[in-house]
Amino acid sequence: MASTWSDNISFSVFGESHGPAIGIVMDNMPPGESIDMDKVMQFMARRAPKKDATSTQRREKDLPQILSGFLNGKTTGTPLCVLIQNTDQHSADYMKSKLDTLVRPGHADYTGALRYRGFNDVRGGGHFSGRLTAPICFAGAVASQILEKRGIYIGAHIAEIHKVKDDSFDSVACTREDILAVREKQFPVINDEKGKRMKREIEKARGFMDSVGGVVECVAINVPAGIGSPMFDGLENTIAQLVFGIPAVKGLEFGAGFNSAKLLGSENNDEFYVDERGHVLTHSNFAGGILGGISNGMPITIRAAFKPTPSIGREQSTIDMRDLKNEKIEVQGRHDPCVVPRAVPVVEAAMAIALLNHMLDYPNFR
Amino acid sequence: MASTWSDNISFSVFGESHGPAIGIVMDNMPPGESIDMDKVMQFMARRAPKKDATSTQRREKDLPQILSGFLNGKTTGTPLCVLIQNTDQHSADYMKSKLDTLVRPGHADYTGALRYRGFNDVRGGGHFSGRLTAPICFAGAVASQILEKRGIYIGAHIAEIHKVKDDSFDSVACTREDILAVREKQFPVINDEKGKRMKREIEKARGFMDSVGGVVECVAINVPAGIGSPMFDGLENTIAQLVFGIPAVKGLEFGAGFNSAKLLGSENNDEFYVDERGHVLTHSNFAGGILGGISNGMPITIRAAFKPTPSIGREQSTIDMRDLKNEKIEVQGRHDPCVVPRAVPVVEAAMAIALLNHMLDYPNFR
Amino acid sequence: MASTWSDNISFSVFGESHGPAIGIVMDNMPPGESIDMDKVMQFMARRAPKKDATSTQRREKDLPQILSGFLNGKTTGTPLCVLIQNTDQHSADYMKSKLDTLVRPGHADYTGALRYRGFNDVRGGGHFSGRLTAPICFAGAVASQILEKRGIYIGAHIAEIHKVKDDSFDSVACTREDILAVREKQFPVINDEKGKRMKREIEKARGFMDSVGGVVECVAINVPAGIGSPMFDGLENTIAQLVFGIPAVKGLEFGAGFNSAKLLGSENNDEFYVDERGHVLTHSNFAGGILGGISNGMPITIRAAFKPTPSIGREQSTIDMRDLKNEKIEVQGRHDPCVVPRAVPVVEAAMAIALLNHMLDYPNFR
Amino acid sequence: MASTWSDNISFSVFGESHGPAIGIVMDNMPPGESIDMDKVMQFMARRAPKKDATSTQRREKDLPQILSGFLNGKTTGTPLCVLIQNTDQHSADYMKSKLDTLVRPGHADYTGALRYRGFNDVRGGGHFSGRLTAPICFAGAVASQILEKRGIYIGAHIAEIHKVKDDSFDSVACTREDILAVREKQFPVINDEKGKRMKREIEKARGFMDSVGGVVECVAINVPAGIGSPMFDGLENTIAQLVFGIPAVKGLEFGAGFNSAKLLGSENNDEFYVDERGHVLTHSNFAGGILGGISNGMPITIRAAFKPTPSIGREQSTIDMRDLKNEKIEVQGRHDPCVVPRAVPVVEAAMAIALLNHMLDYPNFR
Repeated sequence: MASTWSDNISFSVFGESHGPAIGIVMDNMPPGESIDMDKVMQFMARRAPKKDATSTQRREKDLPQILSGFLNGKTTGTPLCVLIQNTDQHSADYMKSKLDTLVRPGHADYTGALRYRGFNDVRGGGHFSGRLTAPICFAGAVASQILEKRGIYIGAHIAEIHKVKDDSFDSVACTREDILAVREKQFPVINDEKGKRMKREIEKARGFMDSVGGVVECVAINVPAGIGSPMFDGLENTIAQLVFGIPAVKGLEFGAGFNSAKLLGSENNDEFYVDERGHVLTHSNFAGGILGGISNGMPITIRAAFKPTPSIGREQSTIDMRDLKNEKIEVQGRHDPCVVPRAVPVVEAAMAIALLNHMLDYPNFR
Repeated sequence: MASTWSDNISFSVFGESHGPAIGIVMDNMPPGESIDMDKVMQFMARRAPKKDATSTQRREKDLPQILSGFLNGKTTGTPLCVLIQNTDQHSADYMKSKLDTLVRPGHADYTGALRYRGFNDVRGGGHFSGRLTAPICFAGAVASQILEKRGIYIGAHIAEIHKVKDDSFDSVACTREDILAVREKQFPVINDEKGKRMKREIEKARGFMDSVGGVVECVAINVPAGIGSPMFDGLENTIAQLVFGIPAVKGLEFGAGFNSAKLLGSENNDEFYVDERGHVLTHSNFAGGILGGISNGMPITIRAAFKPTPSIGREQSTIDMRDLKNEKIEVQGRHDPCVVPRAVPVVEAAMAIALLNHMLDYPNFR
Repeated sequence: MASTWSDNISFSVFGESHGPAIGIVMDNMPPGESIDMDKVMQFMARRAPKKDATSTQRREKDLPQILSGFLNGKTTGTPLCVLIQNTDQHSADYMKSKLDTLVRPGHADYTGALRYRGFNDVRGGGHFSGRLTAPICFAGAVASQILEKRGIYIGAHIAEIHKVKDDSFDSVACTREDILAVREKQFPVINDEKGKRMKREIEKARGFMDSVGGVVECVAINVPAGIGSPMFDGLENTIAQLVFGIPAVKGLEFGAGFNSAKLLGSENNDEFYVDERGHVLTHSNFAGGILGGISNGMPITIRAAFKPTPSIGREQSTIDMRDLKNEKIEVQGRHDPCVVPRAVPVVEAAMAIALLNHMLDYPNFR
Repeated sequence: MASTWSDNISFSVFGESHGPAIGIVMDNMPPGESIDMDKVMQFMARRAPKKDATSTQRREKDLPQILSGFLNGKTTGTPLCVLIQNTDQHSADYMKSKLDTLVRPGHADYTGALRYRGFNDVRGGGHFSGRLTAPICFAGAVASQILEKRGIYIGAHIAEIHKVKDDSFDSVACTREDILAVREKQFPVINDEKGKRMKREIEKARGFMDSVGGVVECVAINVPAGIGSPMFDGLENTIAQLVFGIPAVKGLEFGAGFNSAKLLGSENNDEFYVDERGHVLTHSNFAGGILGGISNGMPITIRAAFKPTPSIGREQSTIDMRDLKNEKIEVQGRHDPCVVPRAVPVVEAAMAIALLNHMLDYPNFR
């Protein structure tokens, strides 16, 4: 499998950071779905480096070029392949810091070299680069539009940066408007005051040639109850498999997550009730909308923890893989001091792909 | 897929809590592996209800009966099927509390009924029952023995129960002895004083007809560097897919996990060094032994959060699915006031299955 | 994968000829489907040895015992596991002819020993035994009943035994009655005169301690147009993958098959027309109801070639695997002089499983 | 799955005949394999239209452009994506004959429209076009080179065109030289006299605005014994799944195939012997090198039947899908009067991919 994922839908992601192009093939997509490419571009633009001190200075247009599976503004149902050219590689930066043999702490240089027996492209992180999240965003943007036509909206925000916490989405009553409000922001937080403090943390880290991590919270509303399965193919399994495919993710929670472990059953159980319209709801949503791997109709809520960017300018100890000697390294190149702001749409994309995949089993999908 | 999982190895889990038997088919196992069935029984016994106030009073021998794939004490390489008879069902308990139509808060009664359109067996939780972790433990016990022959040891302990925290395994220098010491304990914690306090929390919850949750920490040592893949088929993806297959898990961390999000890059990066034997190691292990989805040779460490048992005796609000009316429920039956102590070997099993699966790609496996 | 097959449905077959039991787990089946177990037994009985000179003298009741996934006469949607006990093994027969080290020509003794490095159970053919088609028949019987409720009928007959040919189903106008008429016969042919001659061929071969091969033709009617996919997941790919899972199959044709290669395009193309009811049909059916991997609404027709039973009493040259010496072998034991009559329902089962799998994508399935 | 195939290796084929480009992503390829691109081009050139009257007049350079997974002449092990631009589409031809609504008999126009609910690209056959075999040839060329380094050679030839039969490869003693001799020919047959007669059949059919079918025989030598599995993941299953992915294939045989059905067991069984070097061989090879889904060390031999090209200039009856009316059609455009000569390397490619996939399980692969 590796970079191919197959369930109801199949995805195959390809490319390296400094190769000619990256992209994705999406197979078994539903036919006849209208996709607005301007909205896809807007989705992808949210992943692009911010034009301020919080981001890498690498600039790429990330123009997705569709090669197949799309005709007259609609999916055809045959494999949809999209290509994104690499146009702004500075491979020399990597060579300057001997990154071909000096392995960066916290990065996949060492493990990748063992896995691929030294034959993988290491420039810019190669296939391990965060740049590979661009095609995942394309796929997520397409999946999101298909879901929105069924009323399902997915939103995410920066929930935490280096100990500064944003407010949370309302896990019971989150609305489409709440989601869209955050989506339009340059720095996607609910509480802009907290956002300002987060930015300062990022800029401070950059100043010290260091980096910071954080948490992204993501919510999906209006997912019909009954989607998913127990055991190995439930919503949690699928979302987890995709979210842990995003570089730098080290933790994942559904609903109350680790906090659930601190509660009593009487506190953590979400009591059911029927409202005046005959809808089945729960008063609280500690379950994050999922029971037994299956949606219960309440908002699906997840939190993904991102480690700080491993590529930092500060001197670190490491080894030279060529001669297995201890060395020092100072990572040059243009790196984000924090990947979290750019990761927000990537988490949404993982959620959208997972939900579309399971929605295809839903009897009333069409 | 649902209850079948397929990668290098395939697993197919079947059965319902109150049906005649539960079991698992393990396909594509390596042939010629000696399995000590006494040790398998010991592994499974750790999942059995404790003979004290912390557990359900349901008593089953859980004698695994091997039907195929095993001859003369060794795996044959053809599908290994094991059966575990259900012998102590008290279906009447479930009927008394009208569990066939009153859905239990926090349980999969409601979502399962929608997913299977009302045709699934709801007695004892049916296919959603925690009892289905018994065949997973069998599979994990088999996988563990195969891994131990290659020097890989997996251990787990109760890291937290209702805010009481145990000590942690040493994420850099954890030894086989550390692992075995915990494995032999009736109540698997590192610090027995903390264990006593945890037990009190569980008994207290039972006294109030309530339940508590907790966290299981699991470590795997001596995993060779270079195992796994980037993107969707890395160690994190596989472990996550299996761990979220365990009922009641709502969160998962690798290495420092959510704490990583609070650190600076210079703190979180594990600096590499070569020791006097020429081994590549890291001074710290915030990465939990995984970089880019691939093992780096350090201990693999995970933490899984379990919610409190949803089945509690206290009165709760819920609905009757038959007529969609608001009702009250008091769940009768024999339930664990905390699933965490019994979940410890289940988390080990998930880790063992995931690692064996990826070890089969390792050139020196045999 | 090996003995597990996963697409929309997953199947995991387990067991060895002389182990305690064989069986199958069927995962992701549609819930709420009524299954008549008497009809399942009738289906499986057609695979049982004939009570005459054309079959092995091995006698087993083949009583399927359902362990899960079935309640109140209906599928629950959770994994359906069925067990068939082995009750009439004569392992001594195999030992007498030193079958543990003398490899039978035409059989998987040699290749199996290499594949499983000598650890597989060789008694009675082990996991390679034709007996493993019993659980496949169970699965096929269940799938057939689900399809018949949607009007889809599958029938098969012995099309050829050692050069004696039966008549063919009408590939354009085959009816439910045509199918049921053959299904009820003890020796399933369309033309009973041909059937008598076939039986004589089988008995003659038995008399010479030899065996004969043959061909099974199978048809499926009322499959809606539009089921399947191009490339690797079409009807032909799926049917082929399953049919080549039946021991002794060495060839497979769809529609005119190899005869198509002899025709002109103007002969082989099936011209479309619309009938008075507005149904789209073709005048001929050389395509066997499949174009581009997708059903066109006409009967789906296949032919599967079976080699003669490799286990024969006549002396043959072979090797002893223990010492790699040339030896002679005379295979003892109870073997069918021709597997084809018993293979008829197995081919139907493969067709039924493949079609149910793809029908689950059909919007109007429910 | 559809156009994605996943086992040890994953392949994802994309593109439409008249879109901007077609291609393939090959995932989980072994790293460090040297690939000679000139030899890849030679392989692909054998699929290109012949420059004579036996082929379509469509002319494309089919220059594969590698986007990822290949560095310094070697595979990196990360996904290998290749692109082939479409440069010579004449969509107008298709429009002239109203191919957007008049469905061609024998083609997937009708079934594709139903499967994709009318949204698929029908120009030039779209994703169903034989042109999609170009990326499969690329993949096969790469797989072949990896196999040849292990001594495994794959060769194919036109075995039959419209009743004219070529000689066969020696199924017991076929050599690398036999294979290379055919590979270099412009018209790949063993017996050139037969080849001339075949060409005449093709030209005759073209003269009548008709088409002819045929058979391709393919052999693989030096495949080590013990590769494959019983049941659903054996060599036959994998080869069949891939070969039936080639447009126009309607039949497939292994070894003696349908002829096996006519033989006695004593004739069809291949008797084993040990030669003076201690190698285990068989005197005959009716099994086509496969027993129980697993290689026995003898040449693997298959035969694939191709139907005549469905696109013919002669008038045929068909329907207009727009209004479901009966119509006449004369297919314009540039079509091969026989696909078989160009299909020869495609069958080799399917064999190479299947064998490489299973060879990755072979302990001595590296």
